[in-house]
Order: sequence, then C-alpha cells, then structure tokens
Amino acid sequence: MLDKLHEECGVVGVFNHPEAANLTYLGLYALQHRGQESAGIAAGDPGGKLHIEKGMGLVADVFNNNRLSKLPGINAIGHNRYSTTGDSESQNAQPCLINYAKGSLALAHNGNLVNAIKIREELALGGAIFQSTNDSEVIVHLMAQAHGSFLERATSALGQVKGAFSVLLLSDTQMIASRDPHGFRPLCLGRLDDAYIVASESCVMDLISAEYIREVEPGEVLLIDNNGLQSFFPFPKTDVRQCVFEHIYFSRPDSHLFSDDVYSIRKQMGKALSEEMPVDADIVVPVPDSGVISAMGYAEATGIPFEMGLIRNHYVGRTFIEPQSKIRDFGVKIKLNAVKSLLNGKRVIVVDDSIVRGTTSKKIVKMLREAGAREVHIRICSPPIRHSCFYGIDTPDSAELITNTHDANALCAFLSADTVCYLSQERMMDVFGANRNNFCTACFDGNYPVVVEDNMKEVPQLDLFPPVSETSN
Amino acid sequence: MLDKLHEECGVVGVFNHPEAANLTYLGLYALQHRGQESAGIAAGDPGGKLHIEKGMGLVADVFNNNRLSKLPGINAIGHNRYSTTGDSESQNAQPCLINYAKGSLALAHNGNLVNAIKIREELALGGAIFQSTNDSEVIVHLMAQAHGSFLERATSALGQVKGAFSVLLLSDTQMIASRDPHGFRPLCLGRLDDAYIVASESCVMDLISAEYIREVEPGEVLLIDNNGLQSFFPFPKTDVRQCVFEHIYFSRPDSHLFSDDVYSIRKQMGKALSEEMPVDADIVVPVPDSGVISAMGYAEATGIPFEMGLIRNHYVGRTFIEPQSKIRDFGVKIKLNAVKSLLNGKRVIVVDDSIVRGTTSKKIVKMLREAGAREVHIRICSPPIRHSCFYGIDTPDSAELITNTHDANALCAFLSADTVCYLSQERMMDVFGANRNNFCTACFDGNYPVVVEDNMKEVPQLDLFPPVSETSN
Amino acid sequence: MLDKLHEECGVVGVFNHPEAANLTYLGLYALQHRGQESAGIAAGDPGGKLHIEKGMGLVADVFNNNRLSKLPGINAIGHNRYSTTGDSESQNAQPCLINYAKGSLALAHNGNLVNAIKIREELALGGAIFQSTNDSEVIVHLMAQAHGSFLERATSALGQVKGAFSVLLLSDTQMIASRDPHGFRPLCLGRLDDAYIVASESCVMDLISAEYIREVEPGEVLLIDNNGLQSFFPFPKTDVRQCVFEHIYFSRPDSHLFSDDVYSIRKQMGKALSEEMPVDADIVVPVPDSGVISAMGYAEATGIPFEMGLIRNHYVGRTFIEPQSKIRDFGVKIKLNAVKSLLNGKRVIVVDDSIVRGTTSKKIVKMLREAGAREVHIRICSPPIRHSCFYGIDTPDSAELITNTHDANALCAFLSADTVCYLSQERMMDVFGANRNNFCTACFDGNYPVVVEDNMKEVPQLDLFPPVSETSN
Amino acid sequence: MLDKLHEECGVVGVFNHPEAANLTYLGLYALQHRGQESAGIAAGDPGGKLHIEKGMGLVADVFNNNRLSKLPGINAIGHNRYSTTGDSESQNAQPCLINYAKGSLALAHNGNLVNAIKIREELALGGAIFQSTNDSEVIVHLMAQAHGSFLERATSALGQVKGAFSVLLLSDTQMIASRDPHGFRPLCLGRLDDAYIVASESCVMDLISAEYIREVEPGEVLLIDNNGLQSFFPFPKTDVRQCVFEHIYFSRPDSHLFSDDVYSIRKQMGKALSEEMPVDADIVVPVPDSGVISAMGYAEATGIPFEMGLIRNHYVGRTFIEPQSKIRDFGVKIKLNAVKSLLNGKRVIVVDDSIVRGTTSKKIVKMLREAGAREVHIRICSPPIRHSCFYGIDTPDSAELITNTHDANALCAFLSADTVCYLSQERMMDVFGANRNNFCTACFDGNYPVVVEDNMKEVPQLDLFPPVSETSN
Repeated sequence: MLDKLHEECGVVGVFNHPEAANLTYLGLYALQHRGQESAGIAAGDPGGKLHIEKGMGLVADVFNNNRLSKLPGINAIGHNRYSTTGDSESQNAQPCLINYAKGSLALAHNGNLVNAIKIREELALGGAIFQSTNDSEVIVHLMAQAHGSFLERATSALGQVKGAFSVLLLSDTQMIASRDPHGFRPLCLGRLDDAYIVASESCVMDLISAEYIREVEPGEVLLIDNNGLQSFFPFPKTDVRQCVFEHIYFSRPDSHLFSDDVYSIRKQMGKALSEEMPVDADIVVPVPDSGVISAMGYAEATGIPFEMGLIRNHYVGRTFIEPQSKIRDFGVKIKLNAVKSLLNGKRVIVVDDSIVRGTTSKKIVKMLREAGAREVHIRICSPPIRHSCFYGIDTPDSAELITNTHDANALCAFLSADTVCYLSQERMMDVFGANRNNFCTACFDGNYPVVVEDNMKEVPQLDLFPPVSETSN
Repeated sequence: MLDKLHEECGVVGVFNHPEAANLTYLGLYALQHRGQESAGIAAGDPGGKLHIEKGMGLVADVFNNNRLSKLPGINAIGHNRYSTTGDSESQNAQPCLINYAKGSLALAHNGNLVNAIKIREELALGGAIFQSTNDSEVIVHLMAQAHGSFLERATSALGQVKGAFSVLLLSDTQMIASRDPHGFRPLCLGRLDDAYIVASESCVMDLISAEYIREVEPGEVLLIDNNGLQSFFPFPKTDVRQCVFEHIYFSRPDSHLFSDDVYSIRKQMGKALSEEMPVDADIVVPVPDSGVISAMGYAEATGIPFEMGLIRNHYVGRTFIEPQSKIRDFGVKIKLNAVKSLLNGKRVIVVDDSIVRGTTSKKIVKMLREAGAREVHIRICSPPIRHSCFYGIDTPDSAELITNTHDANALCAFLSADTVCYLSQERMMDVFGANRNNFCTACFDGNYPVVVEDNMKEVPQLDLFPPVSETSN
Repeated sequence: MLDKLHEECGVVGVFNHPEAANLTYLGLYALQHRGQESAGIAAGDPGGKLHIEKGMGLVADVFNNNRLSKLPGINAIGHNRYSTTGDSESQNAQPCLINYAKGSLALAHNGNLVNAIKIREELALGGAIFQSTNDSEVIVHLMAQAHGSFLERATSALGQVKGAFSVLLLSDTQMIASRDPHGFRPLCLGRLDDAYIVASESCVMDLISAEYIREVEPGEVLLIDNNGLQSFFPFPKTDVRQCVFEHIYFSRPDSHLFSDDVYSIRKQMGKALSEEMPVDADIVVPVPDSGVISAMGYAEATGIPFEMGLIRNHYVGRTFIEPQSKIRDFGVKIKLNAVKSLLNGKRVIVVDDSIVRGTTSKKIVKMLREAGAREVHIRICSPPIRHSCFYGIDTPDSAELITNTHDANALCAFLSADTVCYLSQERMMDVFGANRNNFCTACFDGNYPVVVEDNMKEVPQLDLFPPVSETSN
Repeated sequence: MLDKLHEECGVVGVFNHPEAANLTYLGLYALQHRGQESAGIAAGDPGGKLHIEKGMGLVADVFNNNRLSKLPGINAIGHNRYSTTGDSESQNAQPCLINYAKGSLALAHNGNLVNAIKIREELALGGAIFQSTNDSEVIVHLMAQAHGSFLERATSALGQVKGAFSVLLLSDTQMIASRDPHGFRPLCLGRLDDAYIVASESCVMDLISAEYIREVEPGEVLLIDNNGLQSFFPFPKTDVRQCVFEHIYFSRPDSHLFSDDVYSIRKQMGKALSEEMPVDADIVVPVPDSGVISAMGYAEATGIPFEMGLIRNHYVGRTFIEPQSKIRDFGVKIKLNAVKSLLNGKRVIVVDDSIVRGTTSKKIVKMLREAGAREVHIRICSPPIRHSCFYGIDTPDSAELITNTHDANALCAFLSADTVCYLSQERMMDVFGANRNNFCTACFDGNYPVVVEDNMKEVPQLDLFPPVSETSN
C-alpha cells in the first residue's frame, strides 16, 4: 500500500541555461517552505545522459558545490519534498529518474493523485516493478507503456491519472510542464536570457532575476525544446479549483499566485476578519510568521496597535533535536517567546492563519497568560478546517481536526482563551472578487472536486454530504 | 599575535540541576544569535571529572542526544562563539578546559580584553604555553599562577585583565560568574528549582522556564556552590559603561537588559527617529529582522502604514552555500525579496538599525527600485558608526565604516537613495532616561572607557581625540 | 547500454535464524575478498516487510550496529560487489529490492549474464522501467512478468537468462538459491541450529560456526521455507563448467570449492610448476598473499628454501589515498616491501598466481633487483591468460592482457626478469584429477561454454576460433 | 592523574623536502602497525607558521588530499599513537603543537617517561596548565621554562625527563631528533634528495625510496637545519638497553633495528626454539602474522613441513564492529580460520611470538582441535612475560600476565594444549651475539634499567627483588 499520500512539494525546471543546476538549486532554496524532507535535482544535456543528485534534508544540506558540479548540462528539474512524520524513506525522494525504451526520463511532481493505487495494481498485474511507495511513480510507468513521442506519452499518462498534479518531466532533449485540469497546485512560467524557467511560485523568478511571464494554466501541457515553447490543452475542460490554502498559509507572501498577490490577499483577509469578528482590545499580536500579514490587516483596519508580542527564534526551521529530557514541553518555547513587557496587563488579540490540531495554540495562550496578558482573543483568518485534503496538502484525519470536533465554545474552553472566532468562508471568498469560484475549498466545506478512487485513510463520501457551496456553479 | 580579538558571544551556566547539560544546550540555542561559529558545553559533578564537548557550527549541529549524554553531572557552562571571517580555528572554540595544580577548570568568556597580548607575552617569558590564539586563555593562566581558593584565584586573574568580560568559570565544586567593572557585556541571574542559572540574556530564562532574578552587576563576582550564592565586589569601582549596541542590534527583542526592555527601547528609538527625521511617504518598510521593531515605532508615531515590503527567507541563518556561479550577486536576494505589489509606485521609508559597510543597504535600495518604489528614504535608528569597538563587538576598521568615510550626502549618493538620515546620539540616549550615562558609545563618539594596551589593528589615540560627549560625566 | 558487465561478487543467505542480519553481515565479512565496492543486506520476517540497507565501501564501513538494527527478521540475504574502476554507481549495489504484484522481493546475484541486454531491450519495448545498469535487474523483471508461485516465477526467469549465476532470492516467506546449469560460480549450503545458510564459499560456514552440508549443484534450484528444504533441477542438463580461476586466485585458501580444497589445489599447482619449470636458485619468494601457498608447494617440492622476501603492509586492503604528488610510483611499495638482508646476492624464484597486465610484476622485479637479488625467475602458477571472461570475472580486453600480447621471451624482457615461465594448462588440470573436465578454462583457451548474445566489449568469435580442448567432450 | 602511561607509537620527520607532509604521511602509513588509535602531522616552512592536522583512527582514515593540502611547507613531523582500550581521548593525539615565548613548537614522542607525573606536579605548582593527560606534554613545558636556543631548551628538557624517548621536535627553522641514553625505542636516519628523514623504523626509508644512513644513537641529539646535520651527546653515558620486544613482535620483519635485521633475528629465534624445545609432529603452523617468520625458522631447522594452517582475514586491522549479538565469541574466528583439510588428523606445532593473557591462544587451540588436529604443541618464541613494561609497550599488570601466573604445566592445561614450551632467555639472547647485553629484558626478568619515580599502576620494587640474570653485567 502507498504509505505516503499527502504531501506538499515545490518544483523548479530550467531549460537551456548554462547554469541550469545552479539556478534550480537556488529555485529550490526559494521554495524550501514547500518541503523540508528531501531535495533533489536531475540535469542533463541534449543528447547526453541525465544525472541525478538527491538526499534527505534541506536544500542547503543536500547540496554543495561538489554535488552541484556532478549535474552538468543546460536543462534541469528539481524537487523539494514535504513530510510530517519521521518514517519518510529516501527512495520516495524526487526527482525520480528511470530508464525505459525511449531512454532516460526524470519526473518532479507536486500534488496528489487519487487513483494511483488503482493504476498501480493494474500495472503490477502486467509485471511492472515499483521502486517507491510514491504515487508519482505510476506516471512514469504509464509513460513507459504508452506509445509515440515524449509529448504523446506524457499526455497519455497524465490523461489517465486523476487528482492534483503540477508536474515537470525532463528527457534528454525536451522538458514538459503541466498542471491538472482543476489546477489544484500552482505552477508558473518565466524567462531568463535564453532559458525558460518553470516553478511552483513566482518568488523563484525574483530570486534568480528571471522575468515572470504567466501561470501555467489548469489543464495545460507545455512542451519546451530547441524549437521554443508550445502549449497544448489535451485534457477535457473542467472547473478550475485552485487550492485556497496556498493563499491562506502555504505560499510565500511575496509570491503571485492564482491571479492574486498572496500578501494582498492575506492583508484583506485580516481586514475582513476584523470586520466580521471585532473585539475590544489593547494590542494585536500575530503568531509569527504565518499570521503576521493578516494581523497587520486586522490592526490597520481597527486602529488597535500591532505588536510583535511573540518573538520567533531565527534558528528554527532547521533540525533542532530537543534533548531527551524529563523537562518536557519546550515545544513552543523553542520556536516562540512572549515579550512580557508588552503583554503584561494587556487585552490581546492573537491572529493566526488557521488551527489544525490546536495543541500549539493552547500553548501559545498559556504563554501569553504567563506573560501577563489580561485577555486573550484568538482570531483565525480562515474558516474551521473540517475535512481532509486529498489533493496534496497533508491534513490529519477529520477526527483529529480540532475545528471539526469542537465548536467555537468548546474550542475556546480547550484553548483557555477568552474568545475564539473564525473568518467565515463567505467573507474569505469575497476577498477574491471575481475569482471566488475558481477555488477548491474542500477542507472547509467537504466539496471535493474529484472523487477519490483509491482506498485512502479517509474517503470522502460524496453521496452522503453533497457539496453545497458549489451547487450554483 | 592574537588573530581574533573581536568577537561577540553568548554564555550560559547551570549549577545544581540534574539536567544541567540539556538546559545549557537549550540556553545556547536561545542565544544562537550571539555566535554561530562554534558551540561548546563543559559539565561535571562535584568531585567528579569535567567533560567537554564542542565543535564548529550552530548549537543544533554541534550537539545531539548522543553528545549531550557524554556531559553528565549537575553543573555546566556553555558558550556560543561568533566569527565574521572564514579562518576561524577550532582550538579557539570555548569553553576552554584545562588542568592545573588545583584540578580542572572550564571557562566561557564573552567580551574582549585589551591587555591580553601584553599579559600573554609576560606569561610566555615565564614559560607558559598557549594552545589557542584566544584572548580568554590568559585568564586561566593567571588563575593557574595565582594562589589560594578558586574564588581567590579567579578574583586575582580578573583583577589583572582589562577590557570587557562577562565570564563563567566552573570547577568540580563551584561556579563563578563575573562582569567587568564597566559592565560592557550583559549577564543575568535566574533560578530554576534548586538550580542557579546565569546567562547572557534573559530570553534564556524564558525558554527554560527559569525565574529571572536580576542582572549580575558590573564589577560583581558571584560564587555559587553547595552553600548557595555569595556576591563580591573585589574590583575598584568605576563608571558603568554598558554596550549601547546590545540594545540597538545585538540582543533579542524579547530580552531585558541593562535595566530596560530591548523591545521597548527599539520602539522608542523608532519613534524618536520619526520625530527627528520625518519625511512624507506612503509606507514604512523594515529591513527584517533587525529593523522591524523600530520601523513599527516609526510607523506608529507617524501614522504612515507599516508594511512588510521585504520578505525574509526563513531558511537563512543556516549554512547556505552559494553555488560557484558566473551569475553573481544573489547575496541579498537569497535573504530578502521585495513584494512588488506593495512597493510599486510607492514612496518608501526603509528603517534599519545601523549601517556598517553599506553594501547590503545599496543592494536593498536597488531591489526596492526594481520593485517599483518611487522614492526610497533610508532611516537609520542609530548614529553613524565612526570607530572600532575593542570590547567585544566585531566592527571593521574605521576606514571601512561607510558612515565614517561618507557624510550623509555622499552616503545617499552611494546608496542611490532619495534621503538617508540617522538618529542623533543625543536623541538616542534620551530614550534611556536616567540610565543615559551608563553606556559605552565609543563606536559613535570614540569615547573609549578603557585604554587599549595591546597593539590591536586600530588603536584609539585617546590623547589626540579626547572624548567629547562624555566630558560632562 | 549496460556499463558494468564484469564483476565478481559474494553472496550470503540466512533463513530462519533470530540473528539473520548479523550472521549475514559476518558472512559478507568473510567474503570481503570477493567484492569491495559495495555491500548490502535485505532482511525480513515471514509476513512482514523486507528492509534493505546498502552502501558503497567495505562491509565494515557500510554497516554498524545501528544500521544492522534496522534489519529485523529471521531471514536475510547479503551481497558484496566488486568493481575495478572508479565510476561505479550506487544504484548498482545489491541486493536489489523491488515491489511487484506478488509483494516484495530481494535479489543477490554473483556472476554475469550474457543475454541481459537482449532481454532488457525486449522488456523495455513492453514498457518496463529500469533503475540500474545492472544485468541482474532483468531477473526480477522476468519474475514480475511470469506467473504462478515464487518458485515458478523464479524458475521461469532463471530459465530465460544465459550465462553465469549463483543467485539468492528472498520473498517474505521463502528463500531461493540457485546455480546456473554450468555452475560457473560457487555456492554452498550449510546449517546452523534451525537455520539454513547459503554462501559463495565455505569459509562463511566456518566463521559463523555453521555445519557445511554440500555445494548447491550446477542447475539446482533450492527452495527454503517453513517446510524445510526442497531441491529442483528444472533446467536442461549440460556440461559442468566451473570457473578454474576461483581455485587459482579468487577464493580464499581455507575454502572448499568445486569438490576440492583450495589450499591443497594451490599447493599441488606449485609442485607441478616446480616440476614443469625448474630453475636453480637460492630462495623461493611468494608474491603475497595470492602466491604464498603455491610458492610453498614449489619450495617444498624442490627443497629450495621458502622465504617471505616481500613483506605485505597489513593495512592495505582499505581505502588508501595516495597523496597527489610529483613523487610517483609508490604503487607497489605501498603494498609490498623487499627484505634486503634476505635478497641481497641471491638467485630468487618469485611465485605468483597469474599475470594480467604485467605492470605490477615489473615493479616487483625492479624492487627485488634494487634489494640486491642476483637473478629473478618469475614462475606463474597458471597458463597465460589470453581471453576475456564473460561469466563474472573482470578481465581486461585481450589486447591489454600482457600474456596474450607478449610471448614468454618478450614478457621476460618487459619485466626485466631472468626467466618467466608458466604452468601449462594440461599440468594445471592434472591437479584436479577426475574433475579435470568440469571446469571453464575460457580465459586460457578461448573455449567459451556459453555463446555471448549481448554486444559486449569483446565478443568471442566462436566460429573463427573453435574450441580445442573441449572437442572431446 | 595520567591515565595513559603505556603506549607504543611511531614517529616520522622530514626536513627540507617540498613534499614534506606527503612523505610524512607515507612514512606513518609504513608505521601503522606501531599505533592505530590516532595519527597526526605538523608541518611548516622556515619563518612560517606551523600547521597541524590530527585525528582518531588509522592514517588512511585521518588524512586525505584535502587535509594534506592544509600542511604546506618543507618540514614536517608525524605520529601514530597506540591504544589498547576504548577510552582514548583525542586531546592525547600527537604531534602536540604549542605556542610559547620562542614561537611555535611541535613534538612527536615514542616511549614512556617514568618521572612525568612528578615533573608535572612540580610544573603545576608553578602555575603550568596542561591540556592532555599525556606524559609527553611535560617535555614542551620544560622547554618553555628553559632558556637559550631551541637546541639548548630541548637538551635541558630531555635531560630532566627519565625513561624512554625517541622524540622529534620541530620549530619554524629547525628539527631535533633524539633518543634517550638507554636507547629503549628505535629511531633511524635517512636521506632523500636534499632532505633528511628520521623515522622509528627503516621500512619508512624503503617506502619513500630514501637512503638509510644509520640509527640515531642512544643518548644522541641530532639538530637538523639549513646548515645541515649536527650531532650532540649531552646526556651522561649509560648502558644501552634497547627493547628486545621490538625484535620479537613490535617492529616489521622488513626493518633493520638495533644493528640487526628483524627478519633474520626472528628466523634464528625459531631455529633456536626448535633446538631447545623439539617435539615430534607432522606440520609447523604459524599464528599469522607475528609467528610466521619464526615458524619458518622452526620448520626449516627441523624439516617438519611448514603449513599455513591458520588463514588470516585480510580485512582485519581495520575497524570491524562485531554485531551486538547473543552469538558470541566470534573474536578469533573473525581474524583467523583453520584449514581443516590440512589439519585433520595431524600433530601440529603452533608457533607464536609470545603469550600475554592467553585467551586468544586458548581459542586457537580450540579451533585447531575442531579442525581435526590430533595433537597441538604450542611453541613460544620468547620467554614467559612476567613483568610490566614502563618504557613504552603496553603490557597488563603482572597479575594478568598468564605466563607469570601459570607455570608451563598450568598454562598447558589452561590452553588445552598437549605441550607448551618457551624459548629460554639465554638462548634468545644468544641470537644477538655480541649485542646480547645491549637490550632491556625487564618484561622477562624484572631487571628494570631505570627506576620508576611516578606512582604507576605497578611499580617495580627494585630493592626487594634485585635483578638476577643481569648481575653479571
């Protein structure tokens, strides 16, 4: 069985640049927030062999100049992989590099397929051998069994898989970039000198000084080779369902995504939250870093002073091994510290982007109260998460989602907060204006755009809970 | 010759706690910003042997559970070391552990001595052997040659050295914590269960849930052993000259230091700057993270919106190896990215804590202009740095200090900014109120509290340029 | 194309022992001489998952207790791999662990297939994907595409490949051990408590105190599971052609192989050499360690004193990095040193097992002469090697084989020896008595038992040079 | 207290060669048998800085080209260190590099001082600080406290220490090589181009193609600098007492030492043993590798066939981690395997150089009997070891020396051998002819040439047990 279905990742592709691997490395570094479990780059020259280097850990740990020097050539694709648990396995690291009848092929995939197990079982019956427990591996098998050109094989394979994919494929002479028809995960296109760049987020273009061109469109297949760029739309057209959580939490605030600026969206959400869920207080404090922009929006709209009442340790984000200790629960303190002089005696509004399991929020409330906060009002800049995601973001089973199991009152009691309020889905979607219907909001409303065919840990029962907010589409 | 005179560091000591090494490790982690070159811990039981583990790199890289398990005992001291250049050497890592006639002794030192070379030469003539090029090593030699108890030897040695020291000394049965008479560098005392904790900054107490008691006072020698805590003031009393740069830049905003809260001081400095150097603009943008709090003060005082127009990569602060590339000058982009949608067409006030060489500021201005900023006004929350520090902060020679070599107009041209303004020393010191005379401001005004006896790279010539702003003291 | 066709390796399998991985590790250690490039172990419990650990380097470098602890279960197979060149690749390390329709499967293969490329091309046309450039990978693909039980799939796959294989296959419940019908490479069976042990050489049984039972026979397929041991002979019967070079050089002298003791065979070969190629001399000196036993045979038969005139550095056999130096040609001196006091003024017979490229022999002669040897007579305990091996031993192209390109006189001149003589093939085979026809001697006489179907670097042209010594079979 | 008094080591010095560090590295490799715990090299140019690289492990593990490249300059000294126990500490690795009044100085020391603790205590009272628990460190302290030139300081320091030293000292312009007046440990001089080479054994000269000149004489101090070589004999003359165990076991058989060839001495000892302790048997089998040469002497003298009945694993001598296993006692099997076909039914003479604790010998007898040996006769090529060595070889306390606690009969019973016989001290010394009185034989007869002043684990009480066998001297 596939043991890792849910993952968020980052991908970068560079075609026709003398420093392809170096640029890909920098791009992966800019996308480090999308995956910290493993990093890898495959690179090659037209007519030459594809080389691959990958390993467990952060981009800067996996790669050094020596390792980058083993990745010659003018084309490259790279991948950052995310994992929440410790049992990740190195054979699941991407890119995945294989040899088949047409030569060599590398793949980097962001998203999650919902019929991978089914396809895998069929392929295995035909004698296929699998190296990983990765859903992405079925794509290369389908390509190996298809016929025709690199493009034809890719189109055939991607036409058979269902779910979310923003994918990069590299052969010795061509690169393909494609987004699934719903466009769940982001992917954008840029240009640097004579090279094309493809990346999960636009911040990659900024770092390597590439010109941002546009997003790869949902359902689009881009073929890049010596003849330049060609665009195809081979899949049946369907509704666009981009992941709203990319704007809420996942993407970097300096990225432009799904036709909007993340920074601006977050600030507007903070403003909307302040209007929908006002409360009298002395200061607005963000949970850094994910709550900073929306807290600024909240503060600006209300005139309540914005204060950095929780200071984040710069050195978190790296492998910190908590000592084996009887002195427990350093957890949140290792990341955050409350500024007592600011908080003492104050009524505090704490703004965060979302609540998943609630355990961290509970510790933050405790920390604020110990620092002297007189009142603690939690304001969450998104609706309660009630459903698992099957399209590429790692959410726990719905039974573990505290915003699913606890109503606002119960949650307030659990967190020992004075009040806990969310931004409503309607007000949240208002922020997107005309784009409001182009989003997947399944984690909030259970409205799953694609039926899950595989026997995953928690299959949405679409018949019992018909989608509501999407009926008007 | 001593090749490393200038360093800022962090120290932590734990006396009488069953998890002494673990707590010290957590304390060093909280002080990681004070030194990233090396980390080390010495630990031991009363009557037992002192053990030491140290290495080059960040605390979380140097230590793991296996290594911590080699540090048994209820007493420990730890040290983070800072270095700006690549030629750091592992024998300079601290704590320094030695064997002498009275047994074993470990030392952790923050600060810089100004007569270490002179003492070293005298000791060498007497046959002393040195293992490092560290100025701290003279302290243990002076202790080895002194007579009497651990306390008497320490007092004798510390009485002979001049300059800055916040020092921890650990024997098999006692711990000594001391600050030089001027109190250049910080050091504070806390309590956790039956243990005493000593650390460079109060944020250590927060992380390990210790109770903050007070600062170790300038000129104080604390002796901690099974009889508890004893305080001595063996050195001639002199003016208190605490390092103002700790408040401006070095310490964490959540620390309490030199009788003030760093967060509050920085915010007031931002306010003072806005009053002294106002400018009409659309947004106030901090250079993260050092300029964030003062920029908030600036924005709050003026009502100009505060925006995070420069986004910091979370994963900086770790070893990032820039690829050997012809594509150069990623430097600042690797750390910061400008949010175009925010900046485009705007008049921007950029707030930073200080300017040293100016090269980074120049790149930031360029980045902001490329993102569409119409005007860029640099506001620096401290006076121009014109003099080297000899008491423990690594500043370049005065010839490399751009605020020394360029006046405001020339600097403005160099940075391609519209305006560049500083906070004046007088307005800056106003923020400290009654404490205003208890600070060393030598880097701004050349008023060196202690004459440098060693032949350092740039000796202040006190006779030729008598201190001005301090004459009234 | 397959870039590594020629390799000698060692394999070990343990079935039904609580310390399966530990015993396999020890077995690989005993077989370290058969392969120093990489080492790996796959292990698992009935009904459980197969785990694998492998890496580049020696067994003792790849494994430690931590890594062995990741290999739980009562069944395990292990593999040592050999490589002569530096461009070995880690994906070629074995065992190879794959997932297919029937679950998981691990393979360890010693030998070389001569139709692997052909089969690979056919499989690729059907959509198969390859991870390595290893010829062994076709076996698992053929198994995945076959039908029926583990045994049936294995028999089907092994029936399709041609060339040399001593192979171990491990599923979650069964182990299969098999030798190709010609029996090129060795494989033997033992028993320890309730466990069966299979290994390349009998010295493995000695090390782990297992009872040696017998050799796995050429063409035999052994199925080991909870029902015990079952033997099958599913392949068409053919002539036995065991590799004579295993006795000459490759196997350990303490192993029992192909019905004979290696030690005894080597000693008899030395005796035969002394009878066929006598020379008057003062001492017999072996090239350690491969020439020691035959030199003892030579000395014993002639009465000329046996002396260790060349001392071997014990620490060779590990990664020794010769310094980048203008002082070159330490090559042989790093391994061997001549004992001057022994050699000075002496007429020396130097006994070695074989000569391949001749460069080392030339350096040895030079070293002996510099040590004062008056005469140097080279005696080689096997015939001239004139042909490449395609069944699993790495021999250079015939153009690089000095015994192919130089006759005895020319070689003597090249080596600067006084005389150079070989053991004739006939006298060599006499040593094996009744077994004399059960050997592959292709490297000496070009009599290849199996036609090479793949386009290897040097295909034997069977038609042009029909086998001679085998015509009588 | 000094926790490591007993050690055997190897030293190499190179003066005035452009590849000084490379040659030193090769020399240490040739001396690897003298110490496997740590390796280090200090190197420097005249007028330049001394650099040092050292680490735990074998020479080939500690050094690579990168590390050697950090050792520029034309002069270098190196050191291999030996340890029998696991609690070795890295600060004890040599060379030891220190800074003192005259600049920098590196030391490499082979041997053991018997008044180091006493001197250390005196130095500590004067304020000296120690970094290691190494006895060698007192030499550099004594040099630092002495006056005058490098030579004068060295002579002063070496004149104060007692015991065994073959020592190399390197300053920025000079190298000193010296042997203590008794000459306990070896040291020899060679020449390569314009460079002088000094090394523990002559095999170093062979490896680097240097010309062997002579031994450094007991009590000699050699000063090597740009003026060439100068020889001094500053110490009071005394009896020469070279370590006889260097010939029996420690040195390589291809070395020339103490005016004799090791190979020849061992062979003659084997012959003497056969004459003194004959026994009727079928084969003579050495314990490899230390017993090989003497076994050859025994076999040659008696005409009983010499057979390699115990095969040594080539890959021993490296870090082999025995798996944590309930299956114990692989100990000897991991190193040695018995050749059953040779031993079965035979009466076997087993020749070894010495017996220390007897546990390995006991396992060898068991292994031989299990291989079918009918009789096992142990022949030891040296007298019973009854006393600890205090001059540099690590021997256990006399209570752990089985040849001290068991007489021949008891030992024979303990080992389950048929007979156990030793070479007598008189017959052993006969082998050395006229040199017979120039040896230390304290481990056999308790005749200690130098009184041990330090409180070591087992101090010889010279008054109570006056030496017997040496009374005639």
